[in-house]
Amino acid sequence: MMSSAKQGGPVRPATSVWRPLGSDEIQLTGGIWQQKQQLNTEVILEHCETWMERVGWTGNFDRAAAGTIDAGLPGTEHAGIEFVDSEIYKLLEAMAWDLGRGHSASLEDRYQALASRVAAAQEEDGYLHTSFGRPGQPPRYSNLEHGHELYCFGHLIQAAVARLRTGHDDQLPQVARRLADHVYDEFGPKGRVAVCGHPEIEMALVELSRATGERRYLEAARLFVERRGTGTLGPHPFGQQYFQDDLPVRAATTLRGHAVRALYLASGALDVATETGDRALAAAVRHQWASTVARRMYITGGVGSHHQDEAFGDDFELPADRAYAETCAGIASVMLSWRLLLETGEDKYADLIERTLLNNVLASPSADGRAFYYANTLHQRTPGVAADDAHLASPSVASHRAPTGLRAPWFDVSCCPTNVARTLASVALYFATASDDGVQLHQFGDYQISTSLVAGPVTLRVSSGYPADGTIRVTVLEAPSRTPLRLRLRVPGWAHGACEASEPPVARTERSLEFRRIFHAGDEVRVAFPVRARVTYPDTRIDAVRGTFAVERGPLVLALESPDLPPRWSVDELTADPDSIATDEAGATIDVYRCAAAPAEWPYHARPDGRQVERVRTRLIPYHQWANRGPATMRTWLPLAERPAAG
Amino acid sequence: MMSSAKQGGPVRPATSVWRPLGSDEIQLTGGIWQQKQQLNTEVILEHCETWMERVGWTGNFDRAAAGTIDAGLPGTEHAGIEFVDSEIYKLLEAMAWDLGRGHSASLEDRYQALASRVAAAQEEDGYLHTSFGRPGQPPRYSNLEHGHELYCFGHLIQAAVARLRTGHDDQLPQVARRLADHVYDEFGPKGRVAVCGHPEIEMALVELSRATGERRYLEAARLFVERRGTGTLGPHPFGQQYFQDDLPVRAATTLRGHAVRALYLASGALDVATETGDRALAAAVRHQWASTVARRMYITGGVGSHHQDEAFGDDFELPADRAYAETCAGIASVMLSWRLLLETGEDKYADLIERTLLNNVLASPSADGRAFYYANTLHQRTPGVAADDAHLASPSVASHRAPTGLRAPWFDVSCCPTNVARTLASVALYFATASDDGVQLHQFGDYQISTSLVAGPVTLRVSSGYPADGTIRVTVLEAPSRTPLRLRLRVPGWAHGACEASEPPVARTERSLEFRRIFHAGDEVRVAFPVRARVTYPDTRIDAVRGTFAVERGPLVLALESPDLPPRWSVDELTADPDSIATDEAGATIDVYRCAAAPAEWPYHARPDGRQVERVRTRLIPYHQWANRGPATMRTWLPLAERPAAG
Repeated sequence: MMSSAKQGGPVRPATSVWRPLGSDEIQLTGGIWQQKQQLNTEVILEHCETWMERVGWTGNFDRAAAGTIDAGLPGTEHAGIEFVDSEIYKLLEAMAWDLGRGHSASLEDRYQALASRVAAAQEEDGYLHTSFGRPGQPPRYSNLEHGHELYCFGHLIQAAVARLRTGHDDQLPQVARRLADHVYDEFGPKGRVAVCGHPEIEMALVELSRATGERRYLEAARLFVERRGTGTLGPHPFGQQYFQDDLPVRAATTLRGHAVRALYLASGALDVATETGDRALAAAVRHQWASTVARRMYITGGVGSHHQDEAFGDDFELPADRAYAETCAGIASVMLSWRLLLETGEDKYADLIERTLLNNVLASPSADGRAFYYANTLHQRTPGVAADDAHLASPSVASHRAPTGLRAPWFDVSCCPTNVARTLASVALYFATASDDGVQLHQFGDYQISTSLVAGPVTLRVSSGYPADGTIRVTVLEAPSRTPLRLRLRVPGWAHGACEASEPPVARTERSLEFRRIFHAGDEVRVAFPVRARVTYPDTRIDAVRGTFAVERGPLVLALESPDLPPRWSVDELTADPDSIATDEAGATIDVYRCAAAPAEWPYHARPDGRQVERVRTRLIPYHQWANRGPATMRTWLPLAERPAAG
Repeated sequence: MMSSAKQGGPVRPATSVWRPLGSDEIQLTGGIWQQKQQLNTEVILEHCETWMERVGWTGNFDRAAAGTIDAGLPGTEHAGIEFVDSEIYKLLEAMAWDLGRGHSASLEDRYQALASRVAAAQEEDGYLHTSFGRPGQPPRYSNLEHGHELYCFGHLIQAAVARLRTGHDDQLPQVARRLADHVYDEFGPKGRVAVCGHPEIEMALVELSRATGERRYLEAARLFVERRGTGTLGPHPFGQQYFQDDLPVRAATTLRGHAVRALYLASGALDVATETGDRALAAAVRHQWASTVARRMYITGGVGSHHQDEAFGDDFELPADRAYAETCAGIASVMLSWRLLLETGEDKYADLIERTLLNNVLASPSADGRAFYYANTLHQRTPGVAADDAHLASPSVASHRAPTGLRAPWFDVSCCPTNVARTLASVALYFATASDDGVQLHQFGDYQISTSLVAGPVTLRVSSGYPADGTIRVTVLEAPSRTPLRLRLRVPGWAHGACEASEPPVARTERSLEFRRIFHAGDEVRVAFPVRARVTYPDTRIDAVRGTFAVERGPLVLALESPDLPPRWSVDELTADPDSIATDEAGATIDVYRCAAAPAEWPYHARPDGRQVERVRTRLIPYHQWANRGPATMRTWLPLAERPAAG
């Protein structure tokens, strides 16, 4: 365990097995992640900013500051649902991380302008929300079940922490301190015994406490975690598990209810456990993670199989074609796994971060960065309808509930685009950590690390063609000359221990390799993982995909998309031969058979139907790339072909 | 084609292939249907009446009449959501049909008292709704998308038609005429060009036109049907297909969107087509029925695979564990199929009525008639939680959205219990029809028919142990002495033409048998269908149940329920051998194997998992009987066992 004076990333525990790096310590230098981060800087940030200006969500702050919001006159109505403040805050957080990677005068100006508009709406006593408390609005804290006030505060605080961690204690951190002080007064030990319907403020308060040294914020977070599940929230039509008020956090054995809420709460609970040394609480969260991953997760790392309540289903209730697998839930899962990785040092958490980022989260933004998936289905049965000008003009039409099958530029509940933005802006911070005497590489790609160990500065360059290629080259640019450097690489779980190294490691497990020696500038360590396409079968209890298989290639889940099929073939009328897969540059190829189902008035028969009538070789693409070639159908789970009779 | 002066049942077209019977012409005499109808008379009607009194929905009418509803004072708020009026109307319809089967002074008193309270709330100009138009309420017709005003009117009108058809032109029919006149003025040829977000009034107005001879009501219904799909409704967050405003009725090729809405609309459209001789419209509805039945229907006849919007999914998107299969949608499907049966005389419509009534609709009420399923899943993964006193006290907790897994006594949206009540009260009217020279038996059970043909009166007794037993005995009690009687029986589709008859029919097809001769009192015709348990395989395009089979027995879908398994076995960890099924008295028995899935941290593996470790013989029960033995898990689709190696 160690502590650090570094600036740190989104999470900086007082104690952890490994020390997270700050944005001054790790930078992407190439590959898919740099390309996506570039897209974020150049397109997504502005896309979000422009949309929120257009639909009036940013303007809510101006009108709140001027006292002209919800003033009873036509045109004064608060724009958007009651938690759109949080989208501005997630954008501010994204901008802060992006600025932390490298100064941009124009982005700094945009950031400052936006932060000022937010700051202007803060009230005397620190409260800041555009939907509550003014004449004509519902009173403050009058609807804790659904009002999302503390949820929004949490996002403001996270944005402020990003600003602090990137070296600026300016306007937004000041606003956040005053807001957090208000929350402590209102909900702290002498305040009302209550929680917010949507967890989020818990982890935000812990991080602000970590960033400022103010223990009261941690105490408020602890109280919110302990009160959860004690019935402080009124009845919810979906049941109390929807917002995790059915059971105390430490009594629950799995994640349940609304997936984003469940994962934000678990993250906050672990943060509290870490800072207070509450081992029982930490163990409960680890157990919940494990049972969820074993029974309630899609192969992409996506979670949530219920559209209606955006919730986890029962164990093994994982229909591919009704996968909700909300982008924000994937991001929340990464946030939880990252905390558990820092806490325990166990590689399984980094495995899940890899799977979730590369498959679930990266599937959300379109290749051009101007449209997003909210839900990430694993099986698209009908080609979607392209978003048109009407969608652009009206976010309520491009609702997250509209089953268009295509990404949409904006949503009435638009949590995902800004969540993608803050994740891409800070993604490198999840790639590696440091210890007193070494560096740990958890994610692979192309990046450079410059950090200080006890024995002195270290600079490493990691380069690879990952995830398409499995060879990782670590070049030492600078290292202590007299003290051995400990260099640790995760062996991805999907490799099942298979890897080749350019030199013998000092320690090797199925999940990791460790090198330890004096390194000189120019020294290189090469490790290669087999990214061959491989077949994966689902647990028999996942009824919805019985009799099918998926194809994975390295960390990527592959998908069959209709543009790769001959005309008139359908992804819903074929089988595939798992023995025929071959790895190709980007994905794989496979033999598929077209199946002719006899026309029938009724889809249930005395004998199994479907006959393989035609064979073709087709491509499988990385799942996260799907739906970038126009409206299409797609499936990740391929029905097993019947073996043709020999001869 | 013929017309009739009989009173008729819920539907009485001016022209039809066969003439529907009235409640004076057919009565149940035994068997499962009489038992359920008795339960309705003795328990369900009063259960609904008591609940609606308790939760204030009936009181809304009193307060509306007194002008004290939504008066701005505490306690004056309208109770329940804005369409609870319709539940009172469906109860009144149920009572009317029940009274039509036989007089009961006490039920007549309750009926009159309730009808008077409704009548008192009617306004000067005929308008009648407890949620709109008074000071403090939204203006009339200010929210046609979601307000359900015309939907509620439709149910009032259907209740009035039931009263007329059972021989009483009293208070409620008068109220309905004034209301329908108001609707004609407001929305007729000179009124506003608009429709209701929830179809229902269309078929109600046609039936009132049929019952009263007033053509203006038909004209209003025709306008509502023709306006649908022309964009008169504002944008819906689920998309315009949700309330069928995406396409004109005659342009649609399948049912889509909210299932109850889609089926009520199709029923109303067919009624309009029948009365106006619009063959193209009738053909469009027939086509929609056919494509829906072939691709969007569960084996129980249930429809709707989306919980979120209570809607049809894509073709073949039919997950068993996320089946919504709303009871009301099943009832609506019966209403549509009945209309199509009268229109065409084709037995496939009677087949679907049988399947849907015996499996989807009958699954809703508990054996004691005091709790109901709103959604009818085909696979229950976790035992439900029994409804407790808290549920009884608060319908909003026993919400239709709460995934309790058990039937609930009442719901905040409580459309299903009253819909079950009106269906059970009138169910015999769907069993048989008459023509000039004969009688057609579409459904089997125990009932007596007394009607008049051209040649004179006919009385038949139908007796059977159906659906458990397949032998149907038709005893002639009275028949014309000099004119041959034509007696037609449907051969159920599931029998694939297999049946034995006690005498040679004059005509026989795979779907029907026809006898025609002079019958004398005491003559008996016996027909036997093979109700042996049989294996049914799903279309390969229904991904969610690939690699499984169902067991059916006669018209019944069977289910495996956990109380029939050894302790610690789970319905989710077994396979079953289709070659081992044997018919038993009530259902079937089958060999099932317990499958041990190795404990795993991640549910996706390089090799298929699951090993059959233990075999046991178990019962399968009729699906509609499930969840009457306490909290339980259940599945209708059984994973195919692997064949053990020979030797």
